[in-house]
Amino acid sequence: MKTYLYPAKETWDSISKRPYIDNRDLDVTVKEIIARVRSEGDKALHEYSEQFDGAIIKELKVSDAEINESVKAVSDKLKKAIKTAGENIEKFHRSQISEEAVIETMPGIKCWRKNVPVEKVGLYIPGGSAPLFSTVLMLAVPAKIAGCREVIICTPPDKNGKIDPLIVYSAMMTGVTAIYKIGGAQAVTAMAYGTETIPKVYKIFGPGNQYVTKAKEIVQADGIAIDMPAGPSEVLAIADKNADPEFIAADLLAQAEHGTDSQVVFLTDDKKMLIGVNRTVDEQLQRLPRKNIASAALENSFSLLLSSVMECIEFSNVYAPEHLIINTSDASALAENVINAGSVFIGKYSCESAGDYASGTNHTLPTNGFARSFSGVSVDSFIKKVTFQELSHKGIERLGPTIEIMAEAENLYGHKNAVSVRLKR
Amino acid sequence: MKTYLYPAKETWDSISKRPYIDNRDLDVTVKEIIARVRSEGDKALHEYSEQFDGAIIKELKVSDAEINESVKAVSDKLKKAIKTAGENIEKFHRSQISEEAVIETMPGIKCWRKNVPVEKVGLYIPGGSAPLFSTVLMLAVPAKIAGCREVIICTPPDKNGKIDPLIVYSAMMTGVTAIYKIGGAQAVTAMAYGTETIPKVYKIFGPGNQYVTKAKEIVQADGIAIDMPAGPSEVLAIADKNADPEFIAADLLAQAEHGTDSQVVFLTDDKKMLIGVNRTVDEQLQRLPRKNIASAALENSFSLLLSSVMECIEFSNVYAPEHLIINTSDASALAENVINAGSVFIGKYSCESAGDYASGTNHTLPTNGFARSFSGVSVDSFIKKVTFQELSHKGIERLGPTIEIMAEAENLYGHKNAVSVRLKR
Repeated sequence: MKTYLYPAKETWDSISKRPYIDNRDLDVTVKEIIARVRSEGDKALHEYSEQFDGAIIKELKVSDAEINESVKAVSDKLKKAIKTAGENIEKFHRSQISEEAVIETMPGIKCWRKNVPVEKVGLYIPGGSAPLFSTVLMLAVPAKIAGCREVIICTPPDKNGKIDPLIVYSAMMTGVTAIYKIGGAQAVTAMAYGTETIPKVYKIFGPGNQYVTKAKEIVQADGIAIDMPAGPSEVLAIADKNADPEFIAADLLAQAEHGTDSQVVFLTDDKKMLIGVNRTVDEQLQRLPRKNIASAALENSFSLLLSSVMECIEFSNVYAPEHLIINTSDASALAENVINAGSVFIGKYSCESAGDYASGTNHTLPTNGFARSFSGVSVDSFIKKVTFQELSHKGIERLGPTIEIMAEAENLYGHKNAVSVRLKR
Repeated sequence: MKTYLYPAKETWDSISKRPYIDNRDLDVTVKEIIARVRSEGDKALHEYSEQFDGAIIKELKVSDAEINESVKAVSDKLKKAIKTAGENIEKFHRSQISEEAVIETMPGIKCWRKNVPVEKVGLYIPGGSAPLFSTVLMLAVPAKIAGCREVIICTPPDKNGKIDPLIVYSAMMTGVTAIYKIGGAQAVTAMAYGTETIPKVYKIFGPGNQYVTKAKEIVQADGIAIDMPAGPSEVLAIADKNADPEFIAADLLAQAEHGTDSQVVFLTDDKKMLIGVNRTVDEQLQRLPRKNIASAALENSFSLLLSSVMECIEFSNVYAPEHLIINTSDASALAENVINAGSVFIGKYSCESAGDYASGTNHTLPTNGFARSFSGVSVDSFIKKVTFQELSHKGIERLGPTIEIMAEAENLYGHKNAVSVRLKR
């Protein structure tokens, strides 16, 4: 971890810049995959699975027999944990739905919005070394609460053509309607445009490797909705002299173990704490199974000594972290000043892992500074708000002349006439 | 307008396909503009204004003197109309904000979301023959309600380097913080990355020509938030035998006059109405100042005879129109069945023009079938929902083991350890 002591504010922007990842060369590869899946459908999917995942897949769709097998394979301990986490996630996300009132903006003019679920959504769940079943919960629970009719998952198979039982089990617990064994850019394309087996969806969610990310970016430019732009995961932790360096170090390493491209930022107004946390990170690192990954992530990371915890918050607002941990004695008051962050963890017992898994908040959050303009995934992400209006005769009589004047000023006489024909009646 | 009589449901998808617009050749041009504005800043903006708008601009920013001049130039009649429309838009959009409760998902675990305005937003307002001051109201009013700190407008100057007084006046009435005389892809680039004069913003809104649209698409792929993907404007109107063909025809033409690429769709279960509306469209068309534009738009348009008004709604849900007019005797009941639409106009007096200008709803809406997954612009578009959580000692004690079990199952021992160090204390 690089260390900066009292850096001038003018340098904050450049310190906040995330490491540059050049993935322009992916463009050609991913566009080729997209074109082939669009033209050849399932055939291309089978061939890519063999090529990229080393798996020969008979049926893309996970069968009922495979589902039953998976349900049996999950331990009771894990089932109970998934139930607890699922209930918390459901409770918090259910609170996000609100019906809005009908507003009479003028006598005879009623306007309102109605929550309507996106009919078909697709969730991408990465495969690989760790089965991210927590992401199934984080995406499928809000989709179910929203009322989406079709919620499908695409996830890459292992070499034996199998999906991890935890992913299948979590999907079944949360009302997912179908699971398909397909990963990568080819899975994103299948969900965006449909194939013989995989239905086209209207919005695509979920994390993934650089191919998945690039494919989401490309189909988005074609008008297919996606959850949010992606970037490496990151945490920014703020501590004062009262914090426990063990806690902070553990939080930083929990982030660093995600991937070699993760970024970890530590801010404090106390020089002893800076030294203590850096030392404790080194100690804890030695005991971490994913030590190599975490070490590489720490190379991209930095700690900052600033003059006050309030200045730490100011820096954090410039950086706009995905996760913000505030571990200071006045954490709640400080949190009031947060402007740009995905999810904020207040106080010494609020570790990021809680929000990653089970406290109830969503873990699909804006990275890479996107928290300046994006929210994390919520029930809102699975809903459209359709506006309605109803004008009475009195309403159009009253508002009509205003519309006519404005339409005329915009040289849109057809717009004006739509009012005039009604006023004449 | 093409006419289909009782088309089979299997054909609805293909009937609903919007006319294909090939703008791939724009890619090179727009990428060149983006690259040049990013490297040369204001200098490039001045040169593009001269090249594309034929305008030599001294100061990009509209001056206080120009603002005062514009305020004087707007007639009292228009000022009053803008005031009325602005008040309705404000009233409806203010109702969209709701504070959410703090949820205790488990004893000792509190989760909540907070509305935080996007700090800096940029609004693109097209220039050209018609000054779209109504779009200023539709974007700046919700931005102000959201509490955005910086709300800038970019709009192209005329040949004399001037901005239409109505745009300047509307911007001043709605709290816009600065107006810049710049249009096209160069304006989008300036807002996305900043120049010496134009500040970088975090989200870009507003309609525009194909260069603007392409530039928004390209900067979006670079992580800059935009309001929504763009496409030609469109309306779908449904009428039963009780509707007034004059009203329907006027509504269709109000849409058709927008641009030659606009699409107009008319659905009915009554053959006489189909014939009547088509005839009335032809009659009204002759009197329309923008007849040529509307005629061209009607070439891309169609009417459909279906077996019932309920089937009309079903077709509309497949088409997913930007604007949906339901002009039937049971309009309110039918509207309950709407799934995919941007904004719905219920009953014979609810013409689209009302929503375009003054009833209170927003007119920035998803076109091109995007209503399947996107909402129109609202206060939500200018806000992020930041999540917060606070766990007490009791909270982590209770939930900790669940998190540990799940983290271990995902092979993320650093995540587990962040809990374990706290449970040990």
